[in-house]
Amino acid sequence: MAPQVETNLSSITVLTCSKCGKEHDYEILQRVSSCCAMPLLAHYDVSGPFSKEDLQNREGTMWRYREVLPVLNETYKVSLGEGCTPMLDLKNLADAYGFDNLKLKDEGQNPTGSFKARGLSMAISKALELGTEGCIIPTAGNAGVAMAAYCAKANLPAIVVMPRHTPKAFKEECYWYGAEIHLIDGLIHDCAAEVRKLNQDGHLLDVSTLKEPYRLEGKKTMGYEIAEQLQWQVPDVILYPAGGGTGLIGIWKAFQEMIALGWLDKEIRLPRMVAVQAENCRPLVDTFQGVHANSQNYNGLPTLANGLAVPRPLGEPLMLQVLEQSGGTAISISEDDMVEGVRELSRKEGLFVAPEGAAVWMAARQLLKQGWIQPQEQVLLLNTGSGQKYMENIEGRYIG
Amino acid sequence: MAPQVETNLSSITVLTCSKCGKEHDYEILQRVSSCCAMPLLAHYDVSGPFSKEDLQNREGTMWRYREVLPVLNETYKVSLGEGCTPMLDLKNLADAYGFDNLKLKDEGQNPTGSFKARGLSMAISKALELGTEGCIIPTAGNAGVAMAAYCAKANLPAIVVMPRHTPKAFKEECYWYGAEIHLIDGLIHDCAAEVRKLNQDGHLLDVSTLKEPYRLEGKKTMGYEIAEQLQWQVPDVILYPAGGGTGLIGIWKAFQEMIALGWLDKEIRLPRMVAVQAENCRPLVDTFQGVHANSQNYNGLPTLANGLAVPRPLGEPLMLQVLEQSGGTAISISEDDMVEGVRELSRKEGLFVAPEGAAVWMAARQLLKQGWIQPQEQVLLLNTGSGQKYMENIEGRYIG
Ligand SMILES: Cc1ncc(COP(=O)(O)O)c(C=O)c1O
Ligand SMILES: Cc1ncc(COP(=O)(O)O)c(C=O)c1O
Ligand SMILES: [Zn+2]
Ligand SMILES: [Zn+2]
Repeated sequence: MAPQVETNLSSITVLTCSKCGKEHDYEILQRVSSCCAMPLLAHYDVSGPFSKEDLQNREGTMWRYREVLPVLNETYKVSLGEGCTPMLDLKNLADAYGFDNLKLKDEGQNPTGSFKARGLSMAISKALELGTEGCIIPTAGNAGVAMAAYCAKANLPAIVVMPRHTPKAFKEECYWYGAEIHLIDGLIHDCAAEVRKLNQDGHLLDVSTLKEPYRLEGKKTMGYEIAEQLQWQVPDVILYPAGGGTGLIGIWKAFQEMIALGWLDKEIRLPRMVAVQAENCRPLVDTFQGVHANSQNYNGLPTLANGLAVPRPLGEPLMLQVLEQSGGTAISISEDDMVEGVRELSRKEGLFVAPEGAAVWMAARQLLKQGWIQPQEQVLLLNTGSGQKYMENIEGRYIG
Repeated sequence: MAPQVETNLSSITVLTCSKCGKEHDYEILQRVSSCCAMPLLAHYDVSGPFSKEDLQNREGTMWRYREVLPVLNETYKVSLGEGCTPMLDLKNLADAYGFDNLKLKDEGQNPTGSFKARGLSMAISKALELGTEGCIIPTAGNAGVAMAAYCAKANLPAIVVMPRHTPKAFKEECYWYGAEIHLIDGLIHDCAAEVRKLNQDGHLLDVSTLKEPYRLEGKKTMGYEIAEQLQWQVPDVILYPAGGGTGLIGIWKAFQEMIALGWLDKEIRLPRMVAVQAENCRPLVDTFQGVHANSQNYNGLPTLANGLAVPRPLGEPLMLQVLEQSGGTAISISEDDMVEGVRELSRKEGLFVAPEGAAVWMAARQLLKQGWIQPQEQVLLLNTGSGQKYMENIEGRYIG
């Protein structure tokens, strides 16, 4: 609630390649690592004078964590008020299904209606700080809407490339923000191919998931908020709808940083992280279960949860690391179950969520039933988006 | 961001009739005053130990102001995380039109996508605390969606009565929350007539605007937040889209309470309050300008800004008081100007707002041009809702 401060005090020190560890400069615009063509990770000096008590008078947005965020100069901050979303008790569903402690963090209350606002606010701020002619993105919907909005605010041209079957609400909102839209027959990796074609000369910044280092830095603020909202404790289990995987990877990165900062106890038992996918597109689940060695040739189908139709995620190795290090798992949910999840969350908890969020709830139900989650464990669902723009996907399914 | 506290410490003392001042009991469910059939107003003991420093560690929702809110027992709080919406600088539009200091509070980031969440969270919490069989509401859209959501969370049956021409997104969201919906040929006062018919025996709580005392108490938290976000200062001018008028009345009530609490200086110059309406339905503007003595027989037309189609607001006398006491004014905006406002706010500021919010921006433009607002004044726009559910109203108008 406090007003924003004037000076930025980022303690960023370096970027490293997530594959080989090589260091890269954070003072120029970076894409994937030049060494391995893999995602770059930002590092911070955690010895600084930044303490969690400092947060008390900070603004109620993700920018309250500015020391561990990459923007150097406040002037370039492009903000629509993202972050600090509420964490709600799902008492009705907990009682109905036998969870002792079931919570949901509602990312649908972000600007542009999804958690993508965090990543794109950060990426566009850095793009502005480091200088670019414009931005381009392949998207399943929400990321494109967010990019279009932040580019509008930043006075940067925006090109959004999305599957033709994406619900109309995503397309129209991009138009209103003044973005140029390209519709592609296919899924997000087909859109990525089109992006490469449109941006052959590289004059635009390609803000594809994990192809630049800063969307991840925005997404990780969910992890900081989870700990802060639980008074520097963490849940036993966190369930997250994984497409490209930035949220999963980002939340885990935040936990590591908070341990380094001394904000979380060194001995803390970190949450088991669950990646939730759609049965129609479950590359990570198949890799996790050994069905294939990796998803580089996986083909998925469209799903009601548009954001989960990511057949070949670049960040797969990083996601697998998180599942392994945390003792987590991966699970996929059917289309019908997603609709049931939307219905249950709306009828019992007053939350009209995106199918991605509904999938996460159904995953929690299934993992409890299977005994993978114990009734007395504290379980946190990430609802990554509002259901509003998906109306067309689920319309006519509300009766019954 | 801090977790919620366990005990509620409301310092409510009494309700009074807004017309004659007679006192009424706050310990039973009240409708309009039994003396004059006019809105009831809640009062609090402001001498208590509650200070603005206490807010520092409070949760980031409207419930941080609990001492001056009517819910007695935390157990009955029905919350989806409403309130503490961001206040954004509209630097691009300010530069383009010559405002020195132009801000927008984005109420579209509330649960269910509008500021109605505040009022309905409060009203449904009190309904639960005091006991009711269910709730019923006549609505232009957003209030019905919010009531349906909070009733779902509270396990209360909900009946929503709305104009047939309301965009489909409002209706469908209500269905998902499990509400019973009635569609009426006409505007909100025709819906109110249907509500009276459906609830002849009074077994349901009618949560019509200002027909029960607590929606106003939820809405007033916008006033508290405005002052807190500006470090206990206030803007020179606040523009608000007035239908039933709870926001206008509530913000003003909050300012009076904060002066009584000593949170605002006694000598403070309070903002001039501007009520913005649609040309298609401008009952208050006509009363303010002396076109008619009051709006009791006014007939309005539908408007793109569905929430402004309130031809005969019960709270008109209270709204006029606010305009008079604050040195404010009332102004109406055309349908085409609203669409232009939606376009400007999205293209220049990355905000896809409801037509009601767009009307407020266009009103600021006009009042600056007329000299009623001075360039150096601090101007605050209230965007009361997200544009998402209105897509159908403005669709096909984005080209050009
Ligand atoms: C609502 C929603 N949830 C989840 C995802 C997947 O997010 P990520 O790609 O960061 O794993 C997306 C991506 O589009 C989304 O829009
Ligand atoms: C988006 C929006 N803005 C403004 C209003 C008017 O609010 P009030 O009736 O409190 O004046 C409404 C009412 O429906 C609304 O939905
Ligand atoms: Zn490398
Ligand atoms: Zn009276």
